[in-house]
Amino acid sequence: MSGCSTEHGLITVDQALDLILEQTHTLATEKLKLNQALSRYLAEDVYSSINLPLFSQSAVDGYALCAQSSIEPNTEFNLIGEIQAGHSSELKLKAGQAVRIFTGAKIPFGTTTVARQEIVQVIDASRIKIMENLKANADIRDVGEEISIGQLLASKGQQLSVGAIASLSMAGISTVEFVQYPKVAVVITGDEVAESVEDFATGKIFDANGPLIEAWFQQVGQQIEIFHVADTEDAVKSLIQKLSKSYDLILTTGGVSVGDYDFIRPVALDIGFEQIFWKVKQKPGKPMFFAQLERNDRSHCYLLGLPGNPAAVYVGMQIYTSSLLNALQGQKQQPKWFSAVLTHDVKMDGRERFLRMSASFDQSILKVKSLSKQQSHMLSNLMQANCLVRIPAGQSLREGDIVHGLFIH
Amino acid sequence: MSGCSTEHGLITVDQALDLILEQTHTLATEKLKLNQALSRYLAEDVYSSINLPLFSQSAVDGYALCAQSSIEPNTEFNLIGEIQAGHSSELKLKAGQAVRIFTGAKIPFGTTTVARQEIVQVIDASRIKIMENLKANADIRDVGEEISIGQLLASKGQQLSVGAIASLSMAGISTVEFVQYPKVAVVITGDEVAESVEDFATGKIFDANGPLIEAWFQQVGQQIEIFHVADTEDAVKSLIQKLSKSYDLILTTGGVSVGDYDFIRPVALDIGFEQIFWKVKQKPGKPMFFAQLERNDRSHCYLLGLPGNPAAVYVGMQIYTSSLLNALQGQKQQPKWFSAVLTHDVKMDGRERFLRMSASFDQSILKVKSLSKQQSHMLSNLMQANCLVRIPAGQSLREGDIVHGLFIH
Repeated sequence: MSGCSTEHGLITVDQALDLILEQTHTLATEKLKLNQALSRYLAEDVYSSINLPLFSQSAVDGYALCAQSSIEPNTEFNLIGEIQAGHSSELKLKAGQAVRIFTGAKIPFGTTTVARQEIVQVIDASRIKIMENLKANADIRDVGEEISIGQLLASKGQQLSVGAIASLSMAGISTVEFVQYPKVAVVITGDEVAESVEDFATGKIFDANGPLIEAWFQQVGQQIEIFHVADTEDAVKSLIQKLSKSYDLILTTGGVSVGDYDFIRPVALDIGFEQIFWKVKQKPGKPMFFAQLERNDRSHCYLLGLPGNPAAVYVGMQIYTSSLLNALQGQKQQPKWFSAVLTHDVKMDGRERFLRMSASFDQSILKVKSLSKQQSHMLSNLMQANCLVRIPAGQSLREGDIVHGLFIH
Repeated sequence: MSGCSTEHGLITVDQALDLILEQTHTLATEKLKLNQALSRYLAEDVYSSINLPLFSQSAVDGYALCAQSSIEPNTEFNLIGEIQAGHSSELKLKAGQAVRIFTGAKIPFGTTTVARQEIVQVIDASRIKIMENLKANADIRDVGEEISIGQLLASKGQQLSVGAIASLSMAGISTVEFVQYPKVAVVITGDEVAESVEDFATGKIFDANGPLIEAWFQQVGQQIEIFHVADTEDAVKSLIQKLSKSYDLILTTGGVSVGDYDFIRPVALDIGFEQIFWKVKQKPGKPMFFAQLERNDRSHCYLLGLPGNPAAVYVGMQIYTSSLLNALQGQKQQPKWFSAVLTHDVKMDGRERFLRMSASFDQSILKVKSLSKQQSHMLSNLMQANCLVRIPAGQSLREGDIVHGLFIH
């Protein structure tokens, strides 16, 4: 809405992201059990202290055999016992002997091959016959064939996925060093936010920002605390001052523009926060503010001030808060933007825009389509949106042009 | 590993998925607050009981003006007051009057346009001058321009995303009817699963399946209960019988093949479960078992028996459990497979395979690359994998062929 004159001196989206990555210090580390560490970043390389498989084992339900060479159809073997998975055995096979065995069970000493039960005929309790050709070493999983002792399992900086938890668990790893997750306080400013339905006639609105941020952190599986504060300088100052003592990150919504009631920035500077940037050449979310405070113990508190309109908060969470949380955990990389094909023209704007779009695959090609109601006080198109797409400043785009974006929760 | 003879009568992956969708009854509904309902499915259409914006409001920090027509540069107005966001006012503007106003504040009666503060010069406490041309209705957000009373906000069956929570919150919605999330019990079978490091010499292995399933449900934000059971018919039977009385879904790992210690299927049938399918023509996970029990009160308990090898459990969770949980919540659709370009040849196999692959965008085209160590007892490639790709039975594929897959957690 503002004229070009007010855009002077604004930094770009990429500059803002780079400053977030450059200016944040990685938090300390902590030891965690794997079942507390989903989506957390490893603070150390993890090596295997075991072989996988741990021992040579049968890959099938069948019979462990001892033979001098490969086996011809109709060869008979003496059955001398059984080994169930998870049970050990002192059995030793000699030539011509067989043991009943199950998937995952440790093959006995002397085993040269394993016959799956489908190719075995049981003659009686002590005799079996192999019905097909069988070569040496069939259906045996060799000790260490997947992982050997001392092998790197996972690298410092890797994020713990469900698959990574399963994979480390299988190698007997239960506790690993992780970078701490930031302790986050959320401050919702604005006298216009209604506390209840009765508040309404007085020009207030329902709060979308608190529920939005709460749900966003639920989605990433983390706890936060939310505070509401009135639009007075004293109230804002005393709350920020208190929070800055014990939180790693204070996220605020509203109160960062140049209005007479925009207290977040002056109060933060007054408390001793150092401004890293203020105002980004983007839509929505121009008056975004980022600052840091170094505490007496040399630890830091960061403050990311998002504008109060809900679209700016939404973009702020998906693009900036996400990058900042990763940076505090040692991940100093820009978001992983996808490339997609635009399915329609997009008009030029003086600022870079994040448009809420719907992305879908057309065969293997990702295509994106803008949704209506993109204004900064509107959110209803988030019912259909699954991505945010960057439209560079000062460019009009054509159907078929390649754009970059992020999938969103 | 098995010969073609044992594949006879197996159902395909698509048949198995269709049976899961067709044979499950949707659970009952429950009223939930939005902050408890992330990722849940709406059981009703949701309509707005308010307009959005709730009232006509300023889109900027500036001045509400009353003028007969569009305004020429250097027109002066009498300043008669101020309206802050969230505060109401009885002020009424007459021609030639102005009110100081802030973003989101209700515009006073008589307002014909709003001047953003950047184009206004303050002469003194009671006079302002507009410096540029200004047309009628500038920077006013009209009541109901986004949403009007009675408009559909969200549809029955829609999943509640972060954006949907924000959007409904903004419309003052706080409680909605959702389909219940299934109550899930997980049963890990197998004497080979080590309880502690000391158990080792005896042929046991570390459990990957319990941690995998626990983390998978953490990722989707749901609670489950995990039970471990020994490989005896009595232990399996008494546990399944007990769980079938109060859970909607029993997920088991191991014990569903034809080995002498595979008790899940016979025990379930004995208790009164009705088999929906057993054995799917796929790798990994062939001996998968699905059954249902109708209880005396006409409610149902479902049992999905996954094979014990961790790769089969992983595929089982991502493809089948995921579809089953959705079906129980009324979502009777196959997974949304992506299409991608294969970057290398893939050899033929008699069964359909789910290969763990790494997917990435090459410009706007999604390309997938297979990872080594795909065997069913191996999981270490999950450190790099971000998708499961379907390789159809009996086809050898070439670099450049289109394949279908799912992104994974």
